[in-house]
Amino acid sequence: MEEQRFVIEASEAKSMAQSLGLTLAQLLPTLVKSAQPLARVPISKFHVAAVGVGVSGRIFIGVNVEFPDLPFHHTIHAEQFLLTNLSLNKETHLQYFAVSAAPCGHCRQFLQEIRNASDIRLLITSESDPKFKSLSEFLSHPFGPHDLLPKHAPLLLEPRNNDLSFREIETQSNGYNESSISISKLKVAALEAANDSHAPYSESPSGVALLDSRGNVYKGSYMESAAYNPSVGPVQAAIVAFITGAGNGGGEYGELVEAVLVEKDDAVVKQEHTAKLLLSSISPHCRFNIFLCISNKKP
Amino acid sequence: MEEQRFVIEASEAKSMAQSLGLTLAQLLPTLVKSAQPLARVPISKFHVAAVGVGVSGRIFIGVNVEFPDLPFHHTIHAEQFLLTNLSLNKETHLQYFAVSAAPCGHCRQFLQEIRNASDIRLLITSESDPKFKSLSEFLSHPFGPHDLLPKHAPLLLEPRNNDLSFREIETQSNGYNESSISISKLKVAALEAANDSHAPYSESPSGVALLDSRGNVYKGSYMESAAYNPSVGPVQAAIVAFITGAGNGGGEYGELVEAVLVEKDDAVVKQEHTAKLLLSSISPHCRFNIFLCISNKKP
Ligand SMILES: [Zn+2]
Ligand SMILES: [Zn+2]
Repeated sequence: MEEQRFVIEASEAKSMAQSLGLTLAQLLPTLVKSAQPLARVPISKFHVAAVGVGVSGRIFIGVNVEFPDLPFHHTIHAEQFLLTNLSLNKETHLQYFAVSAAPCGHCRQFLQEIRNASDIRLLITSESDPKFKSLSEFLSHPFGPHDLLPKHAPLLLEPRNNDLSFREIETQSNGYNESSISISKLKVAALEAANDSHAPYSESPSGVALLDSRGNVYKGSYMESAAYNPSVGPVQAAIVAFITGAGNGGGEYGELVEAVLVEKDDAVVKQEHTAKLLLSSISPHCRFNIFLCISNKKP
Repeated sequence: MEEQRFVIEASEAKSMAQSLGLTLAQLLPTLVKSAQPLARVPISKFHVAAVGVGVSGRIFIGVNVEFPDLPFHHTIHAEQFLLTNLSLNKETHLQYFAVSAAPCGHCRQFLQEIRNASDIRLLITSESDPKFKSLSEFLSHPFGPHDLLPKHAPLLLEPRNNDLSFREIETQSNGYNESSISISKLKVAALEAANDSHAPYSESPSGVALLDSRGNVYKGSYMESAAYNPSVGPVQAAIVAFITGAGNGGGEYGELVEAVLVEKDDAVVKQEHTAKLLLSSISPHCRFNIFLCISNKKP
């Protein structure tokens, strides 16, 4: 089986395109079909893949992910997975993407979080005459960040630092055991993720770090939508990191053994119970820890 | 203060329009502003109202509802509230609506659940030159029920019966007390709501019934979206019933004292923990009960 990857480096993407006599944008639809099997769709069996190119020339892959036994709002759509993948890799802008089915309204809305979203160009491979069109053709009269935020506020994918820290100086641990070392490491990673979190609407950033049984750490940042509901939870973002990071997208959730959530003590949006519910559903033996942080930003 | 209502009967709507020399559709935008204060928006302070007319000539009102201390996916948007209001009142089609702000993509997607959704006409009162336009102008290349369901399947607002029942014959209660009588009543109502539930994608219908301290029962049916995430949970639907039913939209959630959720024992979408979380957040003293049902439909 061919190796399945979720990021293709710029140099390799360029040579792939050149060898086929295509532009980078034209290369994207040719990669959709082979990405579809990476979707995790136990409920719908409807495999969606979205393949996009960022401003760096790197190519990113997104697929849809469903979670049985839970309400549907936990679902990660391929386009949301794609943006999470860009965010995890510090890619600051999505330029083109090709997707196997018409994006739903929820995703068209989430895409609005990117600066100049209307200019993103997308192509639906299942259409009879697939062509790149602007996102503005898919969501006219958009509601978005510009309705709620000051112009200079960082948008999704743009660098930020939420200036969060833990309130108390860490008390010296009496002994070192494997679990306390893991948790210390996860706390640092989850705080980093919370500092990267895009949460300008609630000012309730949060981050999750997951540890698998091989000692790998995966972190995910909560990402908000101006329309609230299409937001991507911090566990969902960390699951994207796990799927994209854990060897060819093959990782089983049961490999997750320890989780840390970091959120603000006075958050108006609290992830704790929902994060715990999702994690206990997909990996019943994964231990869940929460640590509260404070914001050092001047109001 | 003028009485605030969420449904205006057809005869009254007609005479209101006639007295102003307007059509029913033209009447809708004139009703938006007075409905906005009914929104419950402790987080965003962004009051949205949507006012629509159904095929019966009745006018329905929807507002947005936010829930602090929980993730954003619990939020009810004005357009979703509007459709829930139609559904509660057995209105089978929405024809026109006026709304105070551009509908978000999530709502444009949820509206696709209605038959011939593209023909629904909407007007945004905050635009500089407000005009009715077809929903198809707001969500071109739509993804929707037609991508997943057989043509004859009942869509949102259309009559259905999920043919659910409780597995066991009710055992005769040894004594009657107020609580057991309430719960029996709520069980019946929640089962009715589950039988009305629009859940063709997961085949996991569910219903909630809520009891307030004055003995009123409010029921809500889970309503799914083809795109999964924009689905409206059964507690959300019952909260719409509570807000619209409990005297001028003034009911406080703390008045809710007992809740019953009915869902299938083998459901792939399980509402239990999330329903409990939302209810315990808005009304800490509300008792939560779950009863499992079975489907009598031949597969
Ligand atoms: Zn989507
Ligand atoms: Zn909306």
